[in-house]
Amino acid sequence: MQRRDFMKKAGAGSLALGAGLTGSGAAQAGPKYKWKMVTTWPKNFPGLGTAANKLAALIGEMSGGRMRVKVYGAGELVPAFEIFDAVSRGTAEIGHGAAYYWKGKSEAAQFFSTVPFGLTAQEMNAWLYYGDGLELWTELYDGFGLVPAPAGNTGVQMGGWFNKEINSLADLDGLKMRIPGLGGEILRRAGGLPVNLPGGELFVSLQKGVIDATEWVGPYNDLAFGLYKAAKYYYYPGFHEPGTTLEAMINKAALSSLPKDLQSIVLNACKVVNQDLLSEYTARNPIALETLLNNHKVDLRRYPDDVIKELYRLAQEVLTELAGRDPFSKKVYASYSLFLKQARTWSDISELAYLKARDQA
Amino acid sequence: MQRRDFMKKAGAGSLALGAGLTGSGAAQAGPKYKWKMVTTWPKNFPGLGTAANKLAALIGEMSGGRMRVKVYGAGELVPAFEIFDAVSRGTAEIGHGAAYYWKGKSEAAQFFSTVPFGLTAQEMNAWLYYGDGLELWTELYDGFGLVPAPAGNTGVQMGGWFNKEINSLADLDGLKMRIPGLGGEILRRAGGLPVNLPGGELFVSLQKGVIDATEWVGPYNDLAFGLYKAAKYYYYPGFHEPGTTLEAMINKAALSSLPKDLQSIVLNACKVVNQDLLSEYTARNPIALETLLNNHKVDLRRYPDDVIKELYRLAQEVLTELAGRDPFSKKVYASYSLFLKQARTWSDISELAYLKARDQA
Repeated sequence: MQRRDFMKKAGAGSLALGAGLTGSGAAQAGPKYKWKMVTTWPKNFPGLGTAANKLAALIGEMSGGRMRVKVYGAGELVPAFEIFDAVSRGTAEIGHGAAYYWKGKSEAAQFFSTVPFGLTAQEMNAWLYYGDGLELWTELYDGFGLVPAPAGNTGVQMGGWFNKEINSLADLDGLKMRIPGLGGEILRRAGGLPVNLPGGELFVSLQKGVIDATEWVGPYNDLAFGLYKAAKYYYYPGFHEPGTTLEAMINKAALSSLPKDLQSIVLNACKVVNQDLLSEYTARNPIALETLLNNHKVDLRRYPDDVIKELYRLAQEVLTELAGRDPFSKKVYASYSLFLKQARTWSDISELAYLKARDQA
Repeated sequence: MQRRDFMKKAGAGSLALGAGLTGSGAAQAGPKYKWKMVTTWPKNFPGLGTAANKLAALIGEMSGGRMRVKVYGAGELVPAFEIFDAVSRGTAEIGHGAAYYWKGKSEAAQFFSTVPFGLTAQEMNAWLYYGDGLELWTELYDGFGLVPAPAGNTGVQMGGWFNKEINSLADLDGLKMRIPGLGGEILRRAGGLPVNLPGGELFVSLQKGVIDATEWVGPYNDLAFGLYKAAKYYYYPGFHEPGTTLEAMINKAALSSLPKDLQSIVLNACKVVNQDLLSEYTARNPIALETLLNNHKVDLRRYPDDVIKELYRLAQEVLTELAGRDPFSKKVYASYSLFLKQARTWSDISELAYLKARDQA
């Protein structure tokens, strides 16, 4: 069966069950709305994949079983990087991924996941829900028949695993590193060779010397991949991903066809998962970090100050160019930059000043 | 009518409507479950009070109108500091406040709102949802027939408004300051005179010199009270409230009497509001701060390093004594302290290291 045909039938079928059937809930035999969720993560992948499972379970639970969402891991229904198109066309009603994967659709999409030297998780949520963030994101995805919703956050990530010491910007020259997106573009300008590889290939690539370095997520996910066995140094902070927002993308027609209460349940379940995943990472990263440091004697390193400064400068170059590429990117960049400027002034005397004070003791 | 009688009738009546009536929703004429929400906040108070309104609205929306929650401001049904007892007895089915108000019930309650030099909002959520936090809190409130749920967070607060410069610990000697809870106890040990006053009295008290200083929340709420007109200096960081969790307390019998889907909706609506309020403060504080600094020329000051160090030392004294008072407080303190220790190691190389790096540029 051609994907397009299959998709049309699946899309229609899953909604037909619910057509005209609002109202009476628990008394009915089975779910009235059966949705498919496609994801960019390996099925059940800790954190990222389990957050998708949780989103599906929550929708089922809050709807009293009127809705059931079946989760597909990457490649089970469509390949990881085809979920945007799949949900746009209706092959699945909902997808779980991260907006920076869709920069091929619009460069501006990257602002809705994470930006090097940009907003932290807490600031990002503030921009999305109380700034223009989600409104702009909605405007972008609307062109593809999709409704976006923040649905998870990793918090500040780690810089990555290196087999070369980074003592100055010169050490990035010729460095072959797995670092996708805007972070990769910054590395390229520093003379490095950014490559993209799926998570599952990182360990072997690092061990065989195909790459000199790789970033992934943070201690919790990095420990699970055993990356400490294939690299000498573990660098921080993850300047390139200071609080990556994951997304749910929902087929707009499918969402609209739901009764109002179920629409609210779907969107609020995304909000719950958005907070929940950040809490999970914030709780599990410290424990994994302890294991990495104490049991595996990982050599933890901070990027030197002047490297950070240079990377910051390059990041501004990359972002300014990105904003210049099309009017929508310009609009998003303007909103994001202003919010970041204000958020920094506040963070300096709240979060940052507090964390410094707590550490003085 | 005696409060006790009124409460019993109200409690019974509001649930009787729903008895035996699960199932069919939108077709029904009115809500089947009518709940009352009592709060410790003035009705519609920006942030704190509007979060309670939002919680009520969300429950109505996700339940498709099967449930309606009517919100009462402080003093409308019961006084602010009687809501715990009121919900415990069933006068209202749900309350919105902050756990440190109930230290008279158990000293340990304070750990579930905020602790001086303790967890930030993000870390607090991690402890509550993925550590032992919410489990311990549930154990405590169960003794009062209540189910707790985190339902809002202010983020890092400000140190407060002062009419005296704080250059050394000696400047706290004799300082009359409105600062409740554990922060107040720390001030007392530094020779100060902590007092508690409702928010609405802060401006006049400060202006008339009844107090020398007051803390409140942060720029967004402080600007609204006009505190800048009555004080010379605005100190940071709010070491005493680094991420205050607000709470919903739910009458356990009322919650149990709901069908499973509505139980899930109530608890998940709390989660949504928990994240939402933090986003609101994180978005609005920077804008209010800008107004305070640019339009009102507020004199922003950081607590000196050695004052911070001394306050930290006193905080540890206060907490150790608190933990020694009863076995449950000891258990909660042990869980909180271990989590904080691990969280700090991780924050140092993630949030703190990142915010420092972002600021180097």
